[in-house]
Amino acid sequence: MSNLTREALTARDAADPLHSFRDRFDLPEGMIYLDGNSLGPLAYPVRDRVADVLNREWGQDLITSWNKNHWMALSTRIGDKLAPMIGANAGEVVAADSTSINLFKLLSAAVQLRPDRRTIVSEAGNFPTDLYIAEGLIALLGGSYRLRLIDDGERVEEALDDDVAVVMLTQVDYRTGRKLDMPATTQAVQKAGALMLWDLAHSAGAFPVDLNAAGADFAVGCGYKYLNGGPGAPAFLYVAARHQEGVQPALSGWLGHAQPFAFQHSYAPAAGIVRFVAGTPPVLSMAALDEALTLFGDVDLTALQNKSADLTDLFIALVEERCAGHGLTLATPREAVRRGSQVSFRHADGYALMQALIARRVIGDFRDPDIVRFGFAPLYISFTDVWDAVEHLRQVLENREWADDAYAVRAAVT
Amino acid sequence: MSNLTREALTARDAADPLHSFRDRFDLPEGMIYLDGNSLGPLAYPVRDRVADVLNREWGQDLITSWNKNHWMALSTRIGDKLAPMIGANAGEVVAADSTSINLFKLLSAAVQLRPDRRTIVSEAGNFPTDLYIAEGLIALLGGSYRLRLIDDGERVEEALDDDVAVVMLTQVDYRTGRKLDMPATTQAVQKAGALMLWDLAHSAGAFPVDLNAAGADFAVGCGYKYLNGGPGAPAFLYVAARHQEGVQPALSGWLGHAQPFAFQHSYAPAAGIVRFVAGTPPVLSMAALDEALTLFGDVDLTALQNKSADLTDLFIALVEERCAGHGLTLATPREAVRRGSQVSFRHADGYALMQALIARRVIGDFRDPDIVRFGFAPLYISFTDVWDAVEHLRQVLENREWADDAYAVRAAVT
Repeated sequence: MSNLTREALTARDAADPLHSFRDRFDLPEGMIYLDGNSLGPLAYPVRDRVADVLNREWGQDLITSWNKNHWMALSTRIGDKLAPMIGANAGEVVAADSTSINLFKLLSAAVQLRPDRRTIVSEAGNFPTDLYIAEGLIALLGGSYRLRLIDDGERVEEALDDDVAVVMLTQVDYRTGRKLDMPATTQAVQKAGALMLWDLAHSAGAFPVDLNAAGADFAVGCGYKYLNGGPGAPAFLYVAARHQEGVQPALSGWLGHAQPFAFQHSYAPAAGIVRFVAGTPPVLSMAALDEALTLFGDVDLTALQNKSADLTDLFIALVEERCAGHGLTLATPREAVRRGSQVSFRHADGYALMQALIARRVIGDFRDPDIVRFGFAPLYISFTDVWDAVEHLRQVLENREWADDAYAVRAAVT
Repeated sequence: MSNLTREALTARDAADPLHSFRDRFDLPEGMIYLDGNSLGPLAYPVRDRVADVLNREWGQDLITSWNKNHWMALSTRIGDKLAPMIGANAGEVVAADSTSINLFKLLSAAVQLRPDRRTIVSEAGNFPTDLYIAEGLIALLGGSYRLRLIDDGERVEEALDDDVAVVMLTQVDYRTGRKLDMPATTQAVQKAGALMLWDLAHSAGAFPVDLNAAGADFAVGCGYKYLNGGPGAPAFLYVAARHQEGVQPALSGWLGHAQPFAFQHSYAPAAGIVRFVAGTPPVLSMAALDEALTLFGDVDLTALQNKSADLTDLFIALVEERCAGHGLTLATPREAVRRGSQVSFRHADGYALMQALIARRVIGDFRDPDIVRFGFAPLYISFTDVWDAVEHLRQVLENREWADDAYAVRAAVT
């Protein structure tokens, strides 16, 4: 590693098969954006698409756009674009609502499919909304259900018994970046008679996922992180084809009805995945996500996976070499196969450290209690960016810039 | 009425205190848009705001926008702008999710607050998603709950007994435009010990609503009709202050948590109305709605109410005078106080009739089995528009243009 130079990395960028994708994004000048795992950046085609939806589709075509400009089809069209990125078939994915709402849909579906079981299993460190939604469903269903939290998603077997209806895990931990073995976990859960629900918030768009190869039952995910669908972009959900017809949706809105425009008094679910759509989708935000996924249609997902591993490997190696002795401890698994596209370090003054980096326009984020988190979206982050980010980090640490009083005060969101 | 002329109406437009608002909308040239009760048009400030959110807030400020550009506050900021339009106080309204999802939140809240009651009452002709959502909740809650549908929302007393937990009614019927007496209905429902949930989809933005004067418990409504928030704009919900702290939300997402960025394992609801927010909101669509409501800040709501009554009175009078003998029957209450801002007629060939009007760029819509529906949004529809629309309708009827074969084939959405 000691023979690594910035020049060598710039040459590596030139040889990167994904390098040209960077030019499709409106990345701010002089910023190293390592927070695409929280909010992906704006791609130029997305900007143009939203402007067109505003001015022509809404402004001029108005109500006729539901048919003429295919607004009615957005939920499934987005789903079908996402399907090959997450190992699903067409007709197994839709875009709709938020991740929280979609979790409620699928947890309520899971308990319907396992009526004799009363336990939902998840991980204590799962993203909070996943746990909160399970709590809300359980409270609504009354006293006999329970949520069992395990400390380590890699040891799910310990929590399995014949009362477990569904196991809900996020494949990539939002703090540490730890990535679970999807096929092995799914198999263990199903062997115990339970259903497996994956949260792909930090997976989709960062590396290829293969839900069907793993035999997964359900999945949800986020449109605004690695998929670059825009702030608060609609989320997605996946239901394996074998389960679709057996579920009566709990959030039974009119756009999931078999004949929404027949305006019937009684609910009858649409065939297939469409029944998991509830209300009218936010078209401006849906259009942005749709266009962001069109861009992924040109991406070689194996190249994405490889570059993700290479960028994160490089960051770990450079930090450990060039920032040694400053109290940083790697929080992310060292083996590339066991992590997503982010690297987290622990540091006693992590919050102030990240503020000092942000002041230098190196944008990562901080998660309690002591985690500094860096996302490496392989679509637009270069090897040179990694070098430059580490150089800034080294200077911040050596100059003790993080000790500046201004960096100690916490804002609500970073 | 026989002395009415187009010239007289043009003079009336010139004297209309709301006339200048029309210039703020990008209405297509040569179109008479009487479908703002289905999808409101694009206002220029909304177009500019969305472009700014795209290019500057998302494109350049990226993740910092959650604080810097107040994305975190959008849900409550929109709610507080809406509050005076619907007779609520600040802190009683938020924008979030879709109407369907918000109905689920409030119906589940209502049954929590009336634990010994098992009946939800609604009207058979209510907008279907309202009924479907009630069905979905009831199925999830298990066998002991039921949905009781009445034929006529004006005779709600007949359905009330001591098992009714909540009555859910849409104030303005989406087909006929019939408007319910909000104070009297609410009082009757509450006298029976039940809670009152209003759907304001066809009310908010068309005329002033006064939820608090009526003593209402809950309300939902739509952002994309008379509020002009854009296609599939986020919906809103109202919870009377007295009920907020007593409800544990069923859709308990992280943004309704007391401390969303503390990332706690257990759900603890935020104080007040914020607990009814679930997941991350779609910011592009939220920003459009926010800006559309800023425009309403300049509107005199009494003038809006008066113009709504005048436009619809005029349309009824002109159609009955100038289109007599062509099989049109008024479906909307004749007294202005008993209708919303739309007028519906029944016609045996209603579908083809509307298609023929649309071919002349007079845009209304059709609802099964025989209703032609015309929305008169007082913010941008003029008295001259009403004259011109009736003149087109007269010509379509006298020329039997609706009998053209091309107009008989139905599309999925009109």
